[in-house]
Amino acid sequence: MTVFDRLESEVQSYARSFPVTFEKAEGAWLTDENGNRYLDFLAGAGSLNYGHNHPVLQEKLIDYIKSNGITHGLDMHTKAKEAFLTALEDKILKPRDMDYKVQFTGPTGTNAVEAALKLARRVKGRETVISFTNGFHGCTLGALAITGNEHHRGAAGVSLDNAVAVPFDGYMGDSVDTVDYLDRVLSDNSSGVSLPAAVIVEAVQGEGGLNAADFGWLKKLEQTCRKHDILLIVDDIQAGCGRTGTFFSFEPAGIKPDMITLSKSLSAYGLPFAVVLMKPEFDVWHPGEHNGTFRGNNHAFVTATAALDHFWSDDKFASEVSDKAEFLGKRLEEIAERYGDGKIYRKGRGLMQGICFESGELASKVTKECFKHNLIIETSGPEDEVVKCLVPLIISKQDLGHGLDILELATAKAMGKDVVAVKAAAE
Amino acid sequence: MTVFDRLESEVQSYARSFPVTFEKAEGAWLTDENGNRYLDFLAGAGSLNYGHNHPVLQEKLIDYIKSNGITHGLDMHTKAKEAFLTALEDKILKPRDMDYKVQFTGPTGTNAVEAALKLARRVKGRETVISFTNGFHGCTLGALAITGNEHHRGAAGVSLDNAVAVPFDGYMGDSVDTVDYLDRVLSDNSSGVSLPAAVIVEAVQGEGGLNAADFGWLKKLEQTCRKHDILLIVDDIQAGCGRTGTFFSFEPAGIKPDMITLSKSLSAYGLPFAVVLMKPEFDVWHPGEHNGTFRGNNHAFVTATAALDHFWSDDKFASEVSDKAEFLGKRLEEIAERYGDGKIYRKGRGLMQGICFESGELASKVTKECFKHNLIIETSGPEDEVVKCLVPLIISKQDLGHGLDILELATAKAMGKDVVAVKAAAE
Amino acid sequence: MTVFDRLESEVQSYARSFPVTFEKAEGAWLTDENGNRYLDFLAGAGSLNYGHNHPVLQEKLIDYIKSNGITHGLDMHTKAKEAFLTALEDKILKPRDMDYKVQFTGPTGTNAVEAALKLARRVKGRETVISFTNGFHGCTLGALAITGNEHHRGAAGVSLDNAVAVPFDGYMGDSVDTVDYLDRVLSDNSSGVSLPAAVIVEAVQGEGGLNAADFGWLKKLEQTCRKHDILLIVDDIQAGCGRTGTFFSFEPAGIKPDMITLSKSLSAYGLPFAVVLMKPEFDVWHPGEHNGTFRGNNHAFVTATAALDHFWSDDKFASEVSDKAEFLGKRLEEIAERYGDGKIYRKGRGLMQGICFESGELASKVTKECFKHNLIIETSGPEDEVVKCLVPLIISKQDLGHGLDILELATAKAMGKDVVAVKAAAE
Amino acid sequence: MTVFDRLESEVQSYARSFPVTFEKAEGAWLTDENGNRYLDFLAGAGSLNYGHNHPVLQEKLIDYIKSNGITHGLDMHTKAKEAFLTALEDKILKPRDMDYKVQFTGPTGTNAVEAALKLARRVKGRETVISFTNGFHGCTLGALAITGNEHHRGAAGVSLDNAVAVPFDGYMGDSVDTVDYLDRVLSDNSSGVSLPAAVIVEAVQGEGGLNAADFGWLKKLEQTCRKHDILLIVDDIQAGCGRTGTFFSFEPAGIKPDMITLSKSLSAYGLPFAVVLMKPEFDVWHPGEHNGTFRGNNHAFVTATAALDHFWSDDKFASEVSDKAEFLGKRLEEIAERYGDGKIYRKGRGLMQGICFESGELASKVTKECFKHNLIIETSGPEDEVVKCLVPLIISKQDLGHGLDILELATAKAMGKDVVAVKAAAE
Repeated sequence: MTVFDRLESEVQSYARSFPVTFEKAEGAWLTDENGNRYLDFLAGAGSLNYGHNHPVLQEKLIDYIKSNGITHGLDMHTKAKEAFLTALEDKILKPRDMDYKVQFTGPTGTNAVEAALKLARRVKGRETVISFTNGFHGCTLGALAITGNEHHRGAAGVSLDNAVAVPFDGYMGDSVDTVDYLDRVLSDNSSGVSLPAAVIVEAVQGEGGLNAADFGWLKKLEQTCRKHDILLIVDDIQAGCGRTGTFFSFEPAGIKPDMITLSKSLSAYGLPFAVVLMKPEFDVWHPGEHNGTFRGNNHAFVTATAALDHFWSDDKFASEVSDKAEFLGKRLEEIAERYGDGKIYRKGRGLMQGICFESGELASKVTKECFKHNLIIETSGPEDEVVKCLVPLIISKQDLGHGLDILELATAKAMGKDVVAVKAAAE
Repeated sequence: MTVFDRLESEVQSYARSFPVTFEKAEGAWLTDENGNRYLDFLAGAGSLNYGHNHPVLQEKLIDYIKSNGITHGLDMHTKAKEAFLTALEDKILKPRDMDYKVQFTGPTGTNAVEAALKLARRVKGRETVISFTNGFHGCTLGALAITGNEHHRGAAGVSLDNAVAVPFDGYMGDSVDTVDYLDRVLSDNSSGVSLPAAVIVEAVQGEGGLNAADFGWLKKLEQTCRKHDILLIVDDIQAGCGRTGTFFSFEPAGIKPDMITLSKSLSAYGLPFAVVLMKPEFDVWHPGEHNGTFRGNNHAFVTATAALDHFWSDDKFASEVSDKAEFLGKRLEEIAERYGDGKIYRKGRGLMQGICFESGELASKVTKECFKHNLIIETSGPEDEVVKCLVPLIISKQDLGHGLDILELATAKAMGKDVVAVKAAAE
Repeated sequence: MTVFDRLESEVQSYARSFPVTFEKAEGAWLTDENGNRYLDFLAGAGSLNYGHNHPVLQEKLIDYIKSNGITHGLDMHTKAKEAFLTALEDKILKPRDMDYKVQFTGPTGTNAVEAALKLARRVKGRETVISFTNGFHGCTLGALAITGNEHHRGAAGVSLDNAVAVPFDGYMGDSVDTVDYLDRVLSDNSSGVSLPAAVIVEAVQGEGGLNAADFGWLKKLEQTCRKHDILLIVDDIQAGCGRTGTFFSFEPAGIKPDMITLSKSLSAYGLPFAVVLMKPEFDVWHPGEHNGTFRGNNHAFVTATAALDHFWSDDKFASEVSDKAEFLGKRLEEIAERYGDGKIYRKGRGLMQGICFESGELASKVTKECFKHNLIIETSGPEDEVVKCLVPLIISKQDLGHGLDILELATAKAMGKDVVAVKAAAE
Repeated sequence: MTVFDRLESEVQSYARSFPVTFEKAEGAWLTDENGNRYLDFLAGAGSLNYGHNHPVLQEKLIDYIKSNGITHGLDMHTKAKEAFLTALEDKILKPRDMDYKVQFTGPTGTNAVEAALKLARRVKGRETVISFTNGFHGCTLGALAITGNEHHRGAAGVSLDNAVAVPFDGYMGDSVDTVDYLDRVLSDNSSGVSLPAAVIVEAVQGEGGLNAADFGWLKKLEQTCRKHDILLIVDDIQAGCGRTGTFFSFEPAGIKPDMITLSKSLSAYGLPFAVVLMKPEFDVWHPGEHNGTFRGNNHAFVTATAALDHFWSDDKFASEVSDKAEFLGKRLEEIAERYGDGKIYRKGRGLMQGICFESGELASKVTKECFKHNLIIETSGPEDEVVKCLVPLIISKQDLGHGLDILELATAKAMGKDVVAVKAAAE
C-alpha cells in the first residue's frame, strides 16, 4: 500500500486518469519515476503554456533564489514585483492601449475571481452577477456560485446565491442570439432577474467544453453591459496568456472589459499566481479588504517577468502559436471527418481545441487509449465529451504532430475503424 | 511616479505600513533596495516560521529545480508529493498517534477552509457552521462567512450565510463559560441556531488579537461537539507548524479534531501550500469535486519535506521555540508592567504573543515607531489594538532581544514615558 | 387633513388611483360615501369573482354569525370546515377526477405559496424552485423570490435566493419554444441551474400582464417536469375559481399539477382564505410545521361552501363566464383595431383579458380617464402597460358593455382619436 | 372515514389535541357538534382576547354586512377603515402619546412581520436582523428566519439567512445581563455579527414558553438599539391587545419601539387582520411595494373599531384584566407549590401565564387530562413543557376559577399526587 493509498484523500482526480508517479519534466514532456516519457497535451490544465521548466525562466528563478531574493512578501513592495509590474505595463498593457490597475490576490484563479466579484458588487452596489451556461470560474463559494458544473456545485453543501446563469453564445442553437435574450431580461422590469453588478464571461470556455464565443457576440455583450450600466468581467484564467494566439483571448473581439482575471499560465512556470486587472476608476478597494497570505509569491513574479520579456517583446511567439493553432485545427477536422461518421466534430479556438464526441464514454475511451501510447490528454464539457488538446504553446510541430497521430489512432479505435488504414493516413 | 503608484491597486495594506521596496531576505532579516536591514517580527503573517530563505531548504529547492523536477503537477502523483506525505506521516502524524487523510487543496489557507467547510456539510448533511467571535478564516466567500472581521465582511457585497458566530473563550468575562452557552443553544429546540455541521475554531486567534483558548475550554468544546454529533475543525493555519511550541497548536489540550486546516508555514519557505487533514471516515469526497489548478505546487512539497525532516525529527526545535516563547512572554509582561499603568497587557501563547493597548491609535503609534528603528511589526485585533510579535521561530535570542528592546522603546514613547530610563532598563 | 393622511402609510397603492372613500357595494358596483356609484372592473384584484356581497352568500354568512357559529377555529375541526371540504370534494374534485389533499394555510395567497414551496422542497430534498419571467406569487420572502416584479423584489432588502426565473411561453418570440430551453438547461450537467424541487407557473399571468400560456405549452411543461422528476405547482390564485371559464385555469390543458394554490376568490365573498391542494403522496408534513393563526377562518368556509353549491353544481355558471369572455375578447379586439394603429392589442384569456398599450404612460391615461367616468379599472404588466378587465364573473352583459364603452372612449382619447366617432361606434 | 381523514393534510396540529368537531362558541365556551361544551383556555392562540362572538361586536358586524358595507377593499379608503383609524388614534395612540403611522398588511401576523423586516432593512440599508432565542414571529420565509423553533425552521427547506439569534432576558442565567452581551457583540468590529437593521423582540414570548422580559431589560435594549443606530421592533402580535393588562405589552417598560406589529386579537372577533405601526420618519415605502390582496378586510375593521370603542374608552377593562391576571398568577403559584416538589413553577405575565413542567411529556399529560374534563388548554416552549393559560380576557372569574380547578386536578394527577386532597384544596 503506497503512501498515496494510505494518506491522500479520495478527492484526487487526474491521478486516477494517469496512475503513475511523475518525477521530472521538460518542455512538453513528463518523465515518471521509472524513466518512461509522456507527451503532455494537458499542460497543467492550461497552467504550463510555456512548457515545463523552461530553461530561460529556470535560470532566472535559480539565480533569484540563490541571491536570497525575497520569497514571500505579503503585499509589500519588492524589486521582483516592481519588475513584474514594469514588464506587464511595457510588454502587455501599453502596446494594447490598455489602462488597468493590478490587484495581486491570493495566487489561485478562484481567488482572483472572488476578488473581482466583490469589487464589482462594491462598484455597482448590487448583488447579482450574471454568468453563462457551461462557465467555470472556481471552487470557492463565491466563484462556485457562478460556475455551471453541477458536479462541483453539488459539493457546496449550501445554496449558491446571487448568481444567474444565462445562455452562452450558441447555447440555444444558431437561430437565437443569446445576447438578445440577455438584453430582453435586463430590460424587463418583471423578468425575475435583478439588475446585476456584472456579467462574467470566458471568451473560450475551457472546462465547459471548448465553446468559443463569436467575436461579434462578445462585442454585442460588451455593448449590452454598457447599455444597462453593468460591468463586464472577462475570466481569462485559462484562455489568456497566449493560449488563443493573442495575450488576452478577447483581443480579436475589440472589447475592453472592465475587469480581467488572470492566473494559470501567468507565472509561466507553473507557480501559483493570480491577478485582477481593473479599469482605474473601479479600483475602489479599501486597504486590505481582500487579502491573502500568499499574494506576494515573488518566485512567480520572477518567472512571469522573464516570460513577458522573453515571449512577448515582439510578435514572433504569438505568430508561432497561431500557426500551430491552424495546424491543430486542420488535423482535428481531418480526424473528425475520417472517423466521425458526422457524429464528432472539432471545437475551440487557438491552442485550445479538441474533438467533441457523442458521449463522455467515447471520449474517455479515447483519452485512455492515448495514455497507453504515453499521451497525457483530458476531457472537458458537461458530459466530459470533449477531448481537449491543451498543448504547451512552445510545443514543437513535430511533437504536436506526434501527439495528434496518437489521438487519431485512439479516435479510430474508439469509433471502431480500421487501425491500419489510419496509421497510413497519419504518416 | 513609481510603477506601484501607477499600477498597483489601492487594496494594498502592508505596503502602506512599510513603505520601502524590499529586495533580499535571510533568516529574521529583510533588506531593502538601498541595503537597509530590517528585523522581521511579522514573518509573512506567520508564513515564515523558519525564517526567510533557510539555507537547508534553499539548497533542496535549488537542487530540485535544477534537476527539472516536476514544478506543477495538478493532483497527479509525483515523487515530491510522495516524499512530503511520507515525512508528514513519519514525523508528524504517527508520533502523535494521529490517523488522518490529506487533501491537497488550492495552495492558500482560505481554500483549505473552503474545502473543510464543504466536506463537513457533506458529512453531516447540514448547512450551518459555527465559528467564534474574533475568528479569522479567509476572504473567499465561504471562509469569509465564518470570519468575524467586519472590515473584511463588509467587502463581500452579499450577505454571509449559513454561519453563526458564538463567543470565544473569555469573550463574556471570566465568570461565563462560553462552551456552556454553546451547549445551551445546541440543546434548545428553539434557540434559533440550527444544528450545525461543524464548529471551526483557532486554538489561538491570530488576526482576532492573540486570544489563546484555555486548554480545558478546548477539551470541553470537543466534548460538546461529540455530544451533539457535530464535527470539530481546528483552523491551524496561523497557530500551527510550531508557532505555539508544538506542531499543532491544540496538542496540549489533548483533543483530536475531525478536520485540521494547515497552510502559511506549511511549505516552510513562504511558498503557497495548504492542506486539509481529516479523519479517514470523513473522506467522502467524490473525485475532483473540490479542485484547484495549483494544488500540486511541488516546490512547496520539496521545502515542506525538508523542513519536516530538519526541524521535526526530534524535540530540539520545539523545545527551543518554547524557551523563546517563555522569554518573549516575560519581556512583554515587563514592558506592559513598566509603561502600561495597568492599561496594557501581554496576550497570546508560544511565539504568538503581543501587547494589548487601549486603542488601535496607540498600537499604531508603537508599530510606526518600531519601523523607524527598522523593526517590522504589525497589529491585530478588532480595533488593531494588539501589537503582535510574530517572530520567525528560528530567530536568535539576541535578535529577539534586540527587537524587544525596540518594542520597549516604542511602547515607552507611545505611553509618554521617559525614554532614557527605558533604555537603561532594557539593557 | 383626513385620518388617512395623518395615519396611513405611504405604501398605499390603489387608494392613489381611486381617491374617494368607498362605503357600500353590491354585485359589480361600488358606492362611495357621497353616494356616487362606480362600476368595478377590478373586482378586488380578482378576489371578487362573484361580485360584492352576493345575496346568497350574504344570507348564509349572516345566519352563521347569528347562530354563534365558530368564527376562528385555528386548525380544529368545525362543522363549517367539514361542509367546505365536502363541497370541494363533491363539486370540484370528484367531477374532475382529481385526487388531492387540502392544506388550510394562513388565509392569503402568499402564505399558500410559501407552504407549497416548503412542501415541494421537503418532498424532493432540493432547494431551487423554477419560476417564470413576469410571474407573480406574493410578497413574503419565499414567494417574493419567485416573483418577477422588480418593484416588489427591490423592497426585500435582502437577496432573493433558491429561485431561477426562466422564460414564460412566448417570451422569446414565437419561434422559440421556451419549454425546450428549460429542458435543455435541466438536461445539461453544466448549465448553472441546479435541479429544482419544483416549477411554479400561472396558466395566465395576471400581474405579469395577462400572458396566457398555450395549452400545449402547459402540457409539455408537465411532461418536462415528469421527465426530470420535478414537481409542477400551478399557482391558480388569480386565474382560478372560474376566472378563465373553468374552475381551474389549467383544465383545458389536461394537466394534473402536483400542487395547486388557491386564494383570492376562494371564499367567494372577499374574505381571506387560501389553501394548497396536493397529491396525497406529497402530503408529508409533520403536524403543525407550517401554521398560521387564521388558517381556520370559518366565515370564509361558510361563504366558500355556499358559492361552490350555488355556482358549481352544474355547468351553467361556467358557460355564462365563457360567453362573457367571448364577448369581452371581441370588444377588446375591436377597440384595439379601431384606435391602435397596430400598436395596441388584446391579451389574456377568459374574463382575464385586457389591452396592451405601447407604454405604461398610455395605459395609465386610459385608466385615469375611465375613473372619470366612474369605471374602476387597473393596469398590470412589467411597465403597467396592460389595461386589464378583471370584471366580476357575475357581471351582467349590460354592465360589461357599459364598462367597455367607457374603456373605448378612454382608449380613443388616449390614442388621440376622434371621440365623437367613437361614441357612435360604441353605441 | 370522515372528510377530514380523506381530505385534510397531515399538517393539522390542534385538531389532534382536541379531536372533536366544534360548531358554536360564545364568550369563553365552545360547543361541539354533539352539544358538549368546552371551556376555552386557548382563545384562538391569543386571537380571541374578547372571547368568541362577543355580542357587541357581533351586532356591529351583522349590521355592516346587512347594509352591504364594503367587504373587500384592497387598500382603498373605506368608511370602515376610516372609523378604525380614527378609533385607533383616539383610543390608543393619542392617550399613550404615541405618534405612529399604520400599514395595513396582509391580514396575518407573519405578513406584518415580513413588512416590518423589509421596511427596517430599507430604512437602515442593512440586511441582518437580530432576534432572540425562543422567539416566534411566523412561518413565511422572512419571519421564519427570525423564529427560534427548529420544528418550524426545519420545514423551510432552504437556509434561513440574514438573521442572528441572541439570548433573551434570563437565557444565560440570572447573573448574565444578555443586553450587555448584545452590546458587546455590536461594539466589537470583529464579532462576526454584522451591524443589524433592527432588533425584533416580544415583551412576553408566547410560543417560546411564556418568557416575560424584565422591564429594565427592555428599556436597556431600547437604549442599546439607539446607541448603535438600530431599529427596535416589538412583535406584539400575541402579547398585545390587552393580553398583559395594557394595550401594548411593553407599556410598563416605558419604551417607544420604532415599529410594532399587531395581529391576532386586533380584529377582536377572530377575523384576520394585521398592521404594522411605525414611527412616521420610517414610513419610506414606495406605493404598493409590499402588498397583499386581503389587506382591506373591512369586516375586521368593523369589529376592531367596535372593540376599541367598547373596551378601550376607559381603564375599566384593563383594570379587570390586571385583577384576573393577579388571581391567575396566585392560583398557578399555589398549584406549582402544592404539587411541584420544587420542580414546576409559574411563568409569564398578565393573562399570559402558565406552569412550566419538567418535560413536554408531563405537560402533555396535563393538557390531555384537562381535555377529558372539557378544558381546552395547550402547551408552548422549546420542549412544549409549559402549560399556558391563554384565557379570553373577558372570562368571568368563576369560569377562570373553574378552569384552574381542572388544571389543578390534572397537575396533581400528572405529578402523582392524591386527587382527593386536591379537590378539597381547590374548593
